Amino acid sequence: MENSLHKYLQFIEVSVKEIAFPTKPVSLYQPMTYILDLGGKRVRPILTLIACEVFGTEFQRAKNASLAIELFHNFSLIHDDIMDNAPLRRGKPTVHQKWNQNIAILSGDGMLIEAYKLLHNYSPEISHSLAAVFNKTASEVCEGQQLDMDFETLNQVFITDYLEMIRLKTAVLLGCSLQMGAIVGGASKENQDDVYAFGMNLGIAFQLQDDILDLYADQAKFGKQVGGDILSNKKTYLLLKAFEDANSDQKEMLSQMISEKNPDQKIKLAKTIFAELNIREKAESKMNEYYELALKNLAHLKVDSSHKKPLQDLAEFLMSRQN
Amino acid sequence: MENSLHKYLQFIEVSVKEIAFPTKPVSLYQPMTYILDLGGKRVRPILTLIACEVFGTEFQRAKNASLAIELFHNFSLIHDDIMDNAPLRRGKPTVHQKWNQNIAILSGDGMLIEAYKLLHNYSPEISHSLAAVFNKTASEVCEGQQLDMDFETLNQVFITDYLEMIRLKTAVLLGCSLQMGAIVGGASKENQDDVYAFGMNLGIAFQLQDDILDLYADQAKFGKQVGGDILSNKKTYLLLKAFEDANSDQKEMLSQMISEKNPDQKIKLAKTIFAELNIREKAESKMNEYYELALKNLAHLKVDSSHKKPLQDLAEFLMSRQN
Repeated sequence: MENSLHKYLQFIEVSVKEIAFPTKPVSLYQPMTYILDLGGKRVRPILTLIACEVFGTEFQRAKNASLAIELFHNFSLIHDDIMDNAPLRRGKPTVHQKWNQNIAILSGDGMLIEAYKLLHNYSPEISHSLAAVFNKTASEVCEGQQLDMDFETLNQVFITDYLEMIRLKTAVLLGCSLQMGAIVGGASKENQDDVYAFGMNLGIAFQLQDDILDLYADQAKFGKQVGGDILSNKKTYLLLKAFEDANSDQKEMLSQMISEKNPDQKIKLAKTIFAELNIREKAESKMNEYYELALKNLAHLKVDSSHKKPLQDLAEFLMSRQN
Repeated sequence: MENSLHKYLQFIEVSVKEIAFPTKPVSLYQPMTYILDLGGKRVRPILTLIACEVFGTEFQRAKNASLAIELFHNFSLIHDDIMDNAPLRRGKPTVHQKWNQNIAILSGDGMLIEAYKLLHNYSPEISHSLAAVFNKTASEVCEGQQLDMDFETLNQVFITDYLEMIRLKTAVLLGCSLQMGAIVGGASKENQDDVYAFGMNLGIAFQLQDDILDLYADQAKFGKQVGGDILSNKKTYLLLKAFEDANSDQKEMLSQMISEKNPDQKIKLAKTIFAELNIREKAESKMNEYYELALKNLAHLKVDSSHKKPLQDLAEFLMSRQN
């Protein structure tokens, strides 16, 4: 992470450690500490802190809002991991794996409620404004997760529906993180809308990059198995775009690739068809489209440009990652 | 239900029908409408409406607060039914049974968020006050559910721990329902505390009555199988009290009863030992103790006694039920 962003990350790490959940019942609260301690890039809470500072308010004032976002994110990870039947999260056992499924359901619920408690630590007016965007976003994230699950069993998913799904599941929470920081920072409604849009567009670009990296990352630098989405026949932007652009012969090849059981063969086949169809370039072009939109939102923001630096740094950091 | 309470019930039924969840994704929102349509006594939202009116404010003002409580209650039912592996709720398939477990997890999450949205429909000050008691109670309900699950695998559960569990799992939500109505109604802090305590003590009495009815209800009037708790070896007040008061011979009989597989034999055995130990009378005495406490809280409430009538009616209605 860029040096200029380090102070925010450090502040979040210290603040996360300071969260004092009740100690009992152990099996309700221990999983919350466990998943928070697994770490991560803390992108969302950092966005909240930065957005607060952008509007001339010291970023520490946004502590509770940023922690609420981080707790919400981790609540959604606990429940998503159950739904996805995922054994590992950041290389460690998921909550339902380490404890059991009932504990994962309930401690996830409890964590969502803890997020709401943190939002309460502001004046009634600020809390009320924060809750408006937080509630709306929380519903949207659930909608995105439901669409993602619905897509698994659909024969055909249109690119526009896919983009709407990743907007809901991933991107709006980045927008919300920024808007909440902006609210604490005292931003005008217009500026709030601009940072929200910046985060949302950046989030879509970020997710498209995720889809691209999954197949084209350097295995030495990539945290997980390269080609994981291909191996699980996941309907990512790459696969959907390939189906959309394929002629009938290529569609036949894609179907063969889907049924292929040999992992190396399967990935090789995907790469061959995708190369024929220029899928990587098309995905990068779509990603850049959203990244450009985000930069436009940032340019439109009515604050001294020198104040925008950390947001620019974070956007560049996110878009230059290799894992 | 008493005639005097009918107007509240009718208002809740109409209000529940009027809730307009988004229509998509269908599998996220349809289960919410489904479980709300299963009905129930609507005790909690009625408490909210009454508490508002007690303080001289028209009960319709408490609509959103009462619906938030009803949604929260139904969210907890959806998730509890997964954890308890329950196939039926009010004689109909549970959400995880009718759809699937993932949909039940996610639509439960979404329903909790919808509850928070309803709380947002008040002024910042009122919302902030409502959120304080709602957040605290929501955490406590999760803690109660966790304790209930923990108890299943414990060899010994003390009566005091059991009472604390039912206080958290069931009773505090009745207190919260009343306090939220009182907040909307403009009650003083002292009056808020009194209605809260009234609801909480009534809730404990209500749950103890549940334990008693499970074994001693008239099967013709009882909605479920009489003796269900005995058949599943559930650690209710009756069973825990029996273990506490039993001499070594009686403890031996209780252990035999626990291992007994024949349903009729098992229930007969439980009734015999419980009769020897006067368990029913002891449970009723404990229940009345909490009911008396609730009535004291009501007497202490500083409003014109004529205004207390609906609360008295509801308390009597709850304690006179036979199912």
